[in-house]
Amino acid sequence: MSDGVVIALDAMGGDRAPDMVVKGASIALQRFPQVQFVFYGAEGKLEPLLAKLPRLAQRATVHHTDEVVTGDAKPTVALRTGRRSSMRLAIDAVADGEADCVVSAGNTGALMAMAKFALKTLPGIDRPAMASFFPTRRGESVMLDLGANVECDADNLVQFALMGDVFARTVLGLLQPTVGILNIGSEELKGHEEVRAAAARLRSPGSPIRFHGFIEGDDIAAGTVDVIVTDGFTGNIAVKTAEGTARLFTEFLRAAFRHSLTARFGYIFAASALKKLRERIDPRRYNGAVFLGVGGIAVKSHGGSDALGFANAIGVAVDMKVNGFLDKIRDGVAALAALQAPLDKPQPAAL
Amino acid sequence: MSDGVVIALDAMGGDRAPDMVVKGASIALQRFPQVQFVFYGAEGKLEPLLAKLPRLAQRATVHHTDEVVTGDAKPTVALRTGRRSSMRLAIDAVADGEADCVVSAGNTGALMAMAKFALKTLPGIDRPAMASFFPTRRGESVMLDLGANVECDADNLVQFALMGDVFARTVLGLLQPTVGILNIGSEELKGHEEVRAAAARLRSPGSPIRFHGFIEGDDIAAGTVDVIVTDGFTGNIAVKTAEGTARLFTEFLRAAFRHSLTARFGYIFAASALKKLRERIDPRRYNGAVFLGVGGIAVKSHGGSDALGFANAIGVAVDMKVNGFLDKIRDGVAALAALQAPLDKPQPAAL
Repeated sequence: MSDGVVIALDAMGGDRAPDMVVKGASIALQRFPQVQFVFYGAEGKLEPLLAKLPRLAQRATVHHTDEVVTGDAKPTVALRTGRRSSMRLAIDAVADGEADCVVSAGNTGALMAMAKFALKTLPGIDRPAMASFFPTRRGESVMLDLGANVECDADNLVQFALMGDVFARTVLGLLQPTVGILNIGSEELKGHEEVRAAAARLRSPGSPIRFHGFIEGDDIAAGTVDVIVTDGFTGNIAVKTAEGTARLFTEFLRAAFRHSLTARFGYIFAASALKKLRERIDPRRYNGAVFLGVGGIAVKSHGGSDALGFANAIGVAVDMKVNGFLDKIRDGVAALAALQAPLDKPQPAAL
Repeated sequence: MSDGVVIALDAMGGDRAPDMVVKGASIALQRFPQVQFVFYGAEGKLEPLLAKLPRLAQRATVHHTDEVVTGDAKPTVALRTGRRSSMRLAIDAVADGEADCVVSAGNTGALMAMAKFALKTLPGIDRPAMASFFPTRRGESVMLDLGANVECDADNLVQFALMGDVFARTVLGLLQPTVGILNIGSEELKGHEEVRAAAARLRSPGSPIRFHGFIEGDDIAAGTVDVIVTDGFTGNIAVKTAEGTARLFTEFLRAAFRHSLTARFGYIFAASALKKLRERIDPRRYNGAVFLGVGGIAVKSHGGSDALGFANAIGVAVDMKVNGFLDKIRDGVAALAALQAPLDKPQPAAL
């Protein structure tokens, strides 16, 4: 399936790069033995790491550069001055057709700016969006936008719905994902004008999207829908709020077990069950935010990711490529175009 | 301290009313023995309940009405047709000076509409807001708005900062709470124009607010600030996302303990530690959303609340009254007015 897929890796992005990147590629290679890697970064650091991993070295090439986009670089500055950076060269490899996907654990803002510039926005998509998936009661859901666009209009939200739908189909393997728009109530009249207009459009006959309607914040973890559509401001805050809550809960749990000798004793017996819980919510499993809507596959691994997390981000990129993400977006855009004709007129349902 | 405080209770609001309301008042009376209650609702149901609680009955009167605002009533309809409802009569008691505070577990939208209409918005406050508190790593924080206002301008956010500050001082007992505005990044240039303009104003010299700056979603549970200011759309989604995540975590934990016999055995020893954890995140402890910015104290208990949760909501109302919430808001509005003079000019920091 993954025959001949070429992955361009920003070998210098992320807190633990380049070790983590090389080890992550090595782990990913076990799952996808036919993939090829191009590492962009400091040859002097990469070659010794690859020398220890002969199986990976066989399927890898190194493209040297000394330049790196720092974690605190402003996106506009990185775009202007980082043309020879490991991140930019890896993105350019996709733009030039030398690689199928790019994976980076570097500066998110710089990655978005560079990918948008070098890969261009796909026809029919006005603005790319950041997407990721999350554990839910029913499995996993996709959410977008997570921060690429602070303000979004109804057209943007409808396009996010399409991109999220295709992402869920190609990466989660869902045949017909359900899509919901995040709102503060399920009643038709609640929420911003933008979400109401987007919902009206997604409900229109002939829509290629299986639209559930509005959902609320607690529906995210409940897994009420497979794809959660929202603007980048709300999405970013929702995701970080969920992360913060999960972290607090874990700390409270740890404190509870340390509280007494009996509890410590109980922990010994419960340890394997708690390990299972940790695995179930392990952020490394859900690693890999994707910048959707550009003319190439660009996956962002968490900056603090370890090798396993980075391998999962590579897995997301491979799934997107192998399952034809970009072609499916093009098909979806055509289906949406038919829907968008009546949009120039005011939508009665949105009034 | 609570001598002579009179609490008007909507005895018919909430899933388990009126039992839960009467029992909740009885619990609250143990903490505040000098409080007096006026129950608004069906005499035929209330009198037998009070007959069983002679201590409470001594400090309670019943004001009969058969009318109730249903949970699914639209706020505008409730406002127009519910003039003799238990909720409205309890609010009117505060408006008429017969009671100091009103507590209801009924329909939130109706409560907001009726409180705004009958109690009026306080001078200097453009829009009232819904506030509540939450468990954090450092204790408890206050967040507002939680859904009263879908879109907010910079003036609204600055006024929310003031109201949250005074709420944290009067109910959490903090001397000088820190206030943060929820945003998607800590950099000055990120986020909507509204949040940037509000932040610029709160940073201006002479501000009565101890302004921390912008915070992100994960700062909510971390307890980075005591008061979190945001618009009602974002706040509602953040709160419900946190609730949903906590619920998911609890379910995963339960499933983990059921997973094996060893884990079940471990649970026996860990049970008291886990009970402590549950108490720490018990939603009943954090019961009592408050409608701030109206000319009276109006506390909303959760609709599914039990007697203990309702007693806590009564406690919030008593704390607000005893610690002079309304007077402190009036003082704060005067301090803000001094700040607001330069606001008519464009703010350089907000550009």
